[in-house]
Amino acid sequence: MATGNSASGPLWGVGGVRMATVAAGIRYRGRDDVVLIELAPGSRIAGVFTRNAFCAAPVLLAREHLQRSEGHARYLLINAGNANAGTGEAGLQDARESCAALARAAGVAVEQVLPFSTGVIGEKLPLQRLIDGATAALSQLAADNWDAAARGIMTTDTRPKAVSRQLSLSGTSVSITGICKGAGMIRPDMATMLAYVVTDAGVAQADLQQLLHDGVAQSFNRITVDGDTSTNDCCMLAATGASGLALQADDSEEWRTFAAAVQAVLRELAISVIRDAEGACKFVTVQVDGGRDVAECLQVAYTIAESPLVKTALTASDPNWGRILAAIGRAGVSALDVSKVSIHLGDVCIVEDGMVAGSYTEAAGQAVMQQEDILVRVDLRRGQVSETVWTSDLSEEYVRINASYRS
Amino acid sequence: MATGNSASGPLWGVGGVRMATVAAGIRYRGRDDVVLIELAPGSRIAGVFTRNAFCAAPVLLAREHLQRSEGHARYLLINAGNANAGTGEAGLQDARESCAALARAAGVAVEQVLPFSTGVIGEKLPLQRLIDGATAALSQLAADNWDAAARGIMTTDTRPKAVSRQLSLSGTSVSITGICKGAGMIRPDMATMLAYVVTDAGVAQADLQQLLHDGVAQSFNRITVDGDTSTNDCCMLAATGASGLALQADDSEEWRTFAAAVQAVLRELAISVIRDAEGACKFVTVQVDGGRDVAECLQVAYTIAESPLVKTALTASDPNWGRILAAIGRAGVSALDVSKVSIHLGDVCIVEDGMVAGSYTEAAGQAVMQQEDILVRVDLRRGQVSETVWTSDLSEEYVRINASYRS
Repeated sequence: MATGNSASGPLWGVGGVRMATVAAGIRYRGRDDVVLIELAPGSRIAGVFTRNAFCAAPVLLAREHLQRSEGHARYLLINAGNANAGTGEAGLQDARESCAALARAAGVAVEQVLPFSTGVIGEKLPLQRLIDGATAALSQLAADNWDAAARGIMTTDTRPKAVSRQLSLSGTSVSITGICKGAGMIRPDMATMLAYVVTDAGVAQADLQQLLHDGVAQSFNRITVDGDTSTNDCCMLAATGASGLALQADDSEEWRTFAAAVQAVLRELAISVIRDAEGACKFVTVQVDGGRDVAECLQVAYTIAESPLVKTALTASDPNWGRILAAIGRAGVSALDVSKVSIHLGDVCIVEDGMVAGSYTEAAGQAVMQQEDILVRVDLRRGQVSETVWTSDLSEEYVRINASYRS
Repeated sequence: MATGNSASGPLWGVGGVRMATVAAGIRYRGRDDVVLIELAPGSRIAGVFTRNAFCAAPVLLAREHLQRSEGHARYLLINAGNANAGTGEAGLQDARESCAALARAAGVAVEQVLPFSTGVIGEKLPLQRLIDGATAALSQLAADNWDAAARGIMTTDTRPKAVSRQLSLSGTSVSITGICKGAGMIRPDMATMLAYVVTDAGVAQADLQQLLHDGVAQSFNRITVDGDTSTNDCCMLAATGASGLALQADDSEEWRTFAAAVQAVLRELAISVIRDAEGACKFVTVQVDGGRDVAECLQVAYTIAESPLVKTALTASDPNWGRILAAIGRAGVSALDVSKVSIHLGDVCIVEDGMVAGSYTEAAGQAVMQQEDILVRVDLRRGQVSETVWTSDLSEEYVRINASYRS
């Protein structure tokens, strides 16, 4: 299941980027599962990585290579089907060897190759297949393969996820195109499962890193499927400069337009993850208004978004708002005056001053809950801060998918 | 579904306690849904209540009456099917009136009646039916009706939950008998849904309160089904003194034997909630050893116990330990050295030094996971503290139950 439609609009080519996908047999049969992305010399790349203490081997190595190369990476080597996580020193060695083999074949320094893996945790990486796949991909690099790349990194995803923007800045056409994957084990903490966004603008590494950091905070760090932060989350933002336009982070109209477009791409990609959440039949926006600070708004929003009882009520299109109220009450907001709290489902006010609204009817609540896209809006009425997170429902299909993932 | 067997052994009568159950039509047809428990004059009672900010009206009132009567309550009036939560001032008024009506009929002060409700949140209490039921129950009080009382407070429970102990102290026979209900919206915070334990020993209120507080910390506050703390959680411990033996909290062998028996009753009741958890086909003990303090052990234990991915793997009897490892990694333990962490499933070591154990085979893991009772044991190897929580799995049945609860 999934919500919304999967059409992503045109995917603009980005100058300075080539890619290839290969069916290397990492885990799946009859589909591409190794993706190689090449960045032209002179490109800069920034990244944010999972904060899960059990970082996967490729996360540790990608972080190390990013630092050693000072953002001058040339190749992103991605495999699906095996996370190379919980594999200890041997897993790290496998990741190193795959990068070294590709670096030799491509004639670049090993730290210019960044490795990424996604899939089952705790199984040994089929190293030779990955190396063979990477080498084969190197000879097939082509300019525009975004759709194939988006498909090649999928695991339990039911659809590829890609977003693209083209804008004209000072008369130069600049493209921003990104892909990502993820449908379960989604509660990113500084990044989501795997996301790659590339632009042909030229941007310095420090500016790129800040832009990514800010953008992720309002996109991948505002979504949850099941509260489970992955061991392999990574989000990368690269700038090739191939458009000929160099930008820098300042107060200019140009930078602000560009930064807003990058942020929109990140946000749309993050939302596409939730729309394809495992077993999802609802796309849910949880907006918390009237908080004293960001932390308490997020506390309330995530407690609602991750409550199994709220999620199953959403599955059933049941306006069981008592579960939302109970979630707010246990979110740990200190000295919360419940007699001020209001809850809206879409435009329907269900709770006012901490109790069922006089105007509320079950029929009105039901009408909102029948919809595929649902807005849950909570007003704490104790401050000026608002925050929004996006989530999905909890269906029998979610349980089926996750009870049979490895079989 | 439920795990283990439902036989609870003999339920010992407790001197000084009478009870009655009535089919008052609060929500259900053809079953008892109002339970009245009478404590003999001179009894003392202690209570712990939910910390959910949205306390139900009866919780607010029971707390107030407990304080005003200084623990000299005479009647516990309980209804199932309607939680009287999220009902604002009107709900509080309903609770007050039900207590007042019973107090008048019984000839006691209003603060000697403690009200309790469990069921759907946010619907108006059918006040007249509750009053009629309470009054009818008053004329039917009988000494030993524990099984009927345990059935009368059920909502989504599939079986009654009752535990009883009899012990001989200084030649006097003392009984401790308790009942509770709860199967979903279970992550008690100082108490579970509803639990009532009564002894015929005589105990002062302050000692009773401390005993209950300590006992709940290691029983109802160590269980979770879905992480959702209820608005109605209450756990009450009463001492009638009818056995003729008065006890006080001191270092005596007598007190320690008695306190241990009370704690055992609380723990068994808490475990019975998890065994009857909504949709449960597994009973899971999560034990975290080697922590620096209680807080971090509980952080890790609850993160595992409430991870939808761990829970669905349990449902599937799939030894997908990568999900346990990912949960440990995101639990927020500061400066966790993952290379020291080990994980056992039952007696099988699956992760050693942060990676898959050399001796581990999938067949061995599978054999443990096939069992109904499963022990997940994590060693953080950074301190001396251990903590245990009990939980259930997440099955399609759980989703079905909670997607159709109000229909």
